[in-house]
Amino acid sequence: MKKKNKKVNAAILIIGNEILSGRTQDKNVAFISNWLNSKCGISIEEVRIIPDVEKTIIRNIVLLSKKFNYVFTTGGIGPTHDDITAKSISKAFRLKYEFHKEAYKILENYYGKKHFNDGRKKMAKMPQGSKLIYNPSSAAPGFIIKNVLSLPGVPSILNSMIEYCKRYLINGLKIKSKTINLFTVESNISKKLGQIQKKYKKHVDIGSYPFFRLGRIGVAIVTRSTSLLKLKIVNQELLKFVKLKKIKILKI
Amino acid sequence: MKKKNKKVNAAILIIGNEILSGRTQDKNVAFISNWLNSKCGISIEEVRIIPDVEKTIIRNIVLLSKKFNYVFTTGGIGPTHDDITAKSISKAFRLKYEFHKEAYKILENYYGKKHFNDGRKKMAKMPQGSKLIYNPSSAAPGFIIKNVLSLPGVPSILNSMIEYCKRYLINGLKIKSKTINLFTVESNISKKLGQIQKKYKKHVDIGSYPFFRLGRIGVAIVTRSTSLLKLKIVNQELLKFVKLKKIKILKI
Repeated sequence: MKKKNKKVNAAILIIGNEILSGRTQDKNVAFISNWLNSKCGISIEEVRIIPDVEKTIIRNIVLLSKKFNYVFTTGGIGPTHDDITAKSISKAFRLKYEFHKEAYKILENYYGKKHFNDGRKKMAKMPQGSKLIYNPSSAAPGFIIKNVLSLPGVPSILNSMIEYCKRYLINGLKIKSKTINLFTVESNISKKLGQIQKKYKKHVDIGSYPFFRLGRIGVAIVTRSTSLLKLKIVNQELLKFVKLKKIKILKI
Repeated sequence: MKKKNKKVNAAILIIGNEILSGRTQDKNVAFISNWLNSKCGISIEEVRIIPDVEKTIIRNIVLLSKKFNYVFTTGGIGPTHDDITAKSISKAFRLKYEFHKEAYKILENYYGKKHFNDGRKKMAKMPQGSKLIYNPSSAAPGFIIKNVLSLPGVPSILNSMIEYCKRYLINGLKIKSKTINLFTVESNISKKLGQIQKKYKKHVDIGSYPFFRLGRIGVAIVTRSTSLLKLKIVNQELLKFVKLKKIKILKI
């Protein structure tokens, strides 16, 4: 199951009114994306943030699970009425939404029989045939069904569960990246950057991002590729140009 | 143009490999969403984060501009090769991608004729018929064409331009919200919350979000509605229940 010779992609579906309304700042996209690339060689190619609305969740699960190798959902697997992710995914795949025996036991054991109320029991319901993603922080597991992995929205809990996802994922080609921070402005280097990008279009992706540091304006040139060799060649070309133009490099 | 008696919605399209890869943490969603609701009564109903790929941008602009009253794009309007937002939006609407005379003058004036190179000139190109969104931070303007408003990706610059968008937007019904922070866990209140939500389904949206504060676990109950009266009624009902259950309220 561990093929390393091809590109593997994924999407993230963030489910939650609190992110859309701006009440809560999402932190899961950057975390999941960095983890997936560095640990599994999987690239996030699309993110969607949608409300806690059943038909919207269903439509997006159907579409994204067809379009990408994996879909990660965050949010909506808790005990309250607005936690409808597991039920909606069941409907998206036309699967029964039922108690997962092991999840039920884990939760019953964690809360104790006396305190295992309906809200808590709800967290053991998921699409028929799901496998568990264990939760070392607060017991309630996530799940994987087909190519969809459902994780909670609280970043600290999600972070503690992500390592367990690894066993369910096929590894792809890792994207390596290199950053050169220059004390210049984008428009001073844009022409040359464009030329180099065109030349290595097939293998290297070049991005340029303005920054403000040490009271000065700068540009971070980020090169990304699955080939370390190609990355080196492009960076040599970039550094040659930087030297020629006498642009200062910020070393960090 | 200032109708206040209906719901107005919008989507945000974040264009940028650096957000998808996790290199950069997005901060624009929360800012735009909060600003739009508090100043214009416009609700963000979907967010998408996509790569700097022309056909992906085109497909999303066509789709989202039909589905929502407004679309805000962030990123990709700078001087480098990976800044392809303006060109892609032109293609999405089958409009010419051309120099905007006023934008050209603004930029020429800002940089001076001698330093007004090709990269900088590129920032004056936009879809034919665009109106400008002025930029008090770094001159390069954003633009509005049809119902799509294009803003830069750098948060400090975007923040300085947002007020100018107001003149192009029709106001909608503002969503008011009220938060009660409780020292309890979700599963203790989920049943009652669900009942109250069901009762006021049409007018009030109730969300519950766990938090950790002062070393204790809690739940924030967030109620949202366009009707202040309905919001009050629901919150009275919530507080009655909280009192009955002897749950402590965190006052902040």
